[in-house]
Amino acid sequence: MDKKITWQGATQLAPLPVVLVTTADAVRQNVFTVAWTGIVCSTPPMLSISVRKERFSHPMICESREVTVNIPPASLAEEVDRCGVLSGREYNKFTLCHFTPIPGETVKSPVISECPVSLECKVSHILELGSHDLFIAHITAVRVSERLIDEKGRLQLESADLLAYAHGHYHRVADAIGHFGFSVRKKAGPKVRS
Amino acid sequence: MDKKITWQGATQLAPLPVVLVTTADAVRQNVFTVAWTGIVCSTPPMLSISVRKERFSHPMICESREVTVNIPPASLAEEVDRCGVLSGREYNKFTLCHFTPIPGETVKSPVISECPVSLECKVSHILELGSHDLFIAHITAVRVSERLIDEKGRLQLESADLLAYAHGHYHRVADAIGHFGFSVRKKAGPKVRS
Repeated sequence: MDKKITWQGATQLAPLPVVLVTTADAVRQNVFTVAWTGIVCSTPPMLSISVRKERFSHPMICESREVTVNIPPASLAEEVDRCGVLSGREYNKFTLCHFTPIPGETVKSPVISECPVSLECKVSHILELGSHDLFIAHITAVRVSERLIDEKGRLQLESADLLAYAHGHYHRVADAIGHFGFSVRKKAGPKVRS
Repeated sequence: MDKKITWQGATQLAPLPVVLVTTADAVRQNVFTVAWTGIVCSTPPMLSISVRKERFSHPMICESREVTVNIPPASLAEEVDRCGVLSGREYNKFTLCHFTPIPGETVKSPVISECPVSLECKVSHILELGSHDLFIAHITAVRVSERLIDEKGRLQLESADLLAYAHGHYHRVADAIGHFGFSVRKKAGPKVRS
């Protein structure tokens, strides 16, 4: 049995998604990197992002109540990092990273063309938790690169070269080792929870 | 420029963590799998998990307001899947999966010895969102397998064989391709956001 060490509470959940969040107001657009994100509800589809109050985009999200969560490929890890460490107060990160903004269909914040999947979102709740405010949002549209859709119209996300974040490092996601339900479907096994 | 297809809103965020959540009440313990989880605050350290009301553990969490979030290695992908598709109403999943429960230090829900990192959590908020209730929790202790700590006392999470979930599939996480800040530190580049 593994011997365990106990540390005080820390944000050691891993791996995490790492996404490029775009925002817009009447005059500006910005993009910044968020790893404090996750799905929070299936029906309706909702996600959350946590953002420090001092971030340039924070007041833009509070005002517009809209964001687009762009899922970057691992080939853009350097750009993802740059959008996390540099501020929109000082840089136009779309220009700096050679990102192509595409107009949103359900929100004003832009889709990043270079990201294979983008989730357009409308904020429903804002919770002040401490260093970060939690924005909970409805996913109002999914924008997918056509090249990821197979001839049967299914999303082939394994071709998206997914990027993960763990303990301060960016990682590629390797090939799949199983699908949901594989542990019980491969044998005439116990009943599957409905 | 990528041609984009637009779909209605869906939970297409990826990759996601996939964790084994343990719960306990006066007489029972349970373990179930959650991919709808993420970090929501750095200071204080907090995470969220989303759970359907009809899940066996849901009322146990509402009553105890405690959970332990255990991060499984990819070698346990089959057990992780089993804990997601089978219900604690019908199975003792600790026995079924050969998991060794270790007493919590700050909560009653057990640590799973076979998981390299476990986060003990106390629930602070419960939000009803739709199909899922969102539980927001303070991380009160981190329990780490001693074998992951190097001679300088640092966590070597890359040795934990991390498991990710994306679009219905379990994936291993591959080696790191960069660390936070690598895009600006590798050159005498622009100022880093503090």
